[in-house]
Amino acid sequence: MSQDETSFQTALIATGEAIEGLLDRILAELPLPGETTRPKNLLAAMRHGSLGGGKRLRPFLLSESARLCGADADAALLAGAALELVHCYSLVHDDLPAMDNDDLRRGRPTVHKVYDDALAILAGDSLLTLAFDVMARPAIHPDAKVRLDLVMGLARASGIGGMAGGQALDLEAEGRYSEHKTPLSLKADEIRQLQAMKTGALLLFAVEAGGILAQAPERTRKALLDYGRAVGAAFQIADDILDVEADTATLGKSAGKDSEQGKGTLVALLGLDNAKAERDRLARVALEALAGFGDEADRLRATARFIVQRGH
Amino acid sequence: MSQDETSFQTALIATGEAIEGLLDRILAELPLPGETTRPKNLLAAMRHGSLGGGKRLRPFLLSESARLCGADADAALLAGAALELVHCYSLVHDDLPAMDNDDLRRGRPTVHKVYDDALAILAGDSLLTLAFDVMARPAIHPDAKVRLDLVMGLARASGIGGMAGGQALDLEAEGRYSEHKTPLSLKADEIRQLQAMKTGALLLFAVEAGGILAQAPERTRKALLDYGRAVGAAFQIADDILDVEADTATLGKSAGKDSEQGKGTLVALLGLDNAKAERDRLARVALEALAGFGDEADRLRATARFIVQRGH
Repeated sequence: MSQDETSFQTALIATGEAIEGLLDRILAELPLPGETTRPKNLLAAMRHGSLGGGKRLRPFLLSESARLCGADADAALLAGAALELVHCYSLVHDDLPAMDNDDLRRGRPTVHKVYDDALAILAGDSLLTLAFDVMARPAIHPDAKVRLDLVMGLARASGIGGMAGGQALDLEAEGRYSEHKTPLSLKADEIRQLQAMKTGALLLFAVEAGGILAQAPERTRKALLDYGRAVGAAFQIADDILDVEADTATLGKSAGKDSEQGKGTLVALLGLDNAKAERDRLARVALEALAGFGDEADRLRATARFIVQRGH
Repeated sequence: MSQDETSFQTALIATGEAIEGLLDRILAELPLPGETTRPKNLLAAMRHGSLGGGKRLRPFLLSESARLCGADADAALLAGAALELVHCYSLVHDDLPAMDNDDLRRGRPTVHKVYDDALAILAGDSLLTLAFDVMARPAIHPDAKVRLDLVMGLARASGIGGMAGGQALDLEAEGRYSEHKTPLSLKADEIRQLQAMKTGALLLFAVEAGGILAQAPERTRKALLDYGRAVGAAFQIADDILDVEADTATLGKSAGKDSEQGKGTLVALLGLDNAKAERDRLARVALEALAGFGDEADRLRATARFIVQRGH
């Protein structure tokens, strides 16, 4: 590994640990002042769905883009924790039998396997709700307008126009709501749009949030958005490639599920080689977007390379 | 009907229609600027889960407490629409087979019956997310701090310390997570606490939000909180009484489900007469909390009486 890669890996692990600690503390403080009864099974399900794993890639992107723009590091971590709560809620709901029906996540049984579907639904709901609570807290930024921009951005990235909408398009692509229940034949651009919503929107918001938090100038924000869009798209293609190439043990979740369920991916539509070429092209676009920055953007550059190269 | 009651009924219907129109417009505007693809089944499920019915009691309480404190009427309606989106999401998720398993809501098939469980989960998620989007919008209040207080209050009332936590306690009371899966024997105060979270928190926030929106003085807010707590508690007892006394046709949802599922209610624990006495006592507490106000609080007074007397 080069020195750059070592520094990136060290920083990724450090941010991951900081986010783990922060989420643990946020959840340990529940219920909050004025809230008297603690529903202990729900709290345990929320903890199971959010602690103990994951690369915390979204908080890392948020922290690094915030650092690039000169924002406060602790505030960026807290905003990253709020964002990660949304990511975790989406995993808990996506894993449900009614959705993707996954028994394993990060090598452990999913929330509905440990508890039941009802508690997994409620735990997801509560993690999502808590995300907005955390994003609205004064420790995020002294200026209420900045916190509101973050709340609004998080809502737009997560809702029908973003992540949840992308997940719905994915279910539609399976043919669940079509007359003959057969998978739809999506065109490449339709798959790209679906993925830009399903996984791209939250990754894009991660880097956007760094700029909001730092109240960065327009030009910097534009560069971050270009970077975030490319990285988000590359991430999903890389994920689909992994799903075809990796086995369940390496992946920590059930492998090959996407093709089993007939989901449209660029890998399935364009073939493995073309998908890899698009992934690599997107990584180059991401790096070009950062051309105006110096060494301080090296970790974001390493992140783009990491997304392309990662084994799981 | 007395003149007061006529005026109350007219106002309740007018607010209900305004909220219906507002929700319709908010949903028609989706996806928002920058969001390119519209997941049509998800949007239809969100519309089914939020339009076409309901008394819109929470927005009415918000509007009336805002009016009492001198806040802008249009802003109060928009905040009421945000609050109603949270209420609607909770109904969509609570009706799921994994939760309360209801086929009927407001006399119509529930969202998961019309679509499927996956889309009902996503529609609920998206309604909840949209609620925070709407509450953060500039049209709610020019002062970002006020909107943030509303966002934070909505999150606290809806999450593990409020509505979702109360629903989890309700599932626990069914015995789902106990060793022998037998219903727990809750004490009266435990039932009161559960209900203060499950239905009380959102009703309380409705009147609290009126005070926040108007930046009302501490004394006014305190009176509204006392009123809101009493009205919220009375509402749930009245609901449980109705569940025992009404039939399915009158109720517009499956009657008698609570006792079927062995849920702890004050009616079941204390008997019908004692439950009615507690409901009536709470209505008096609500009226006493408004003793410092003049005619301008008459509709809030009528609401307390309505909650006690309503047939469905």
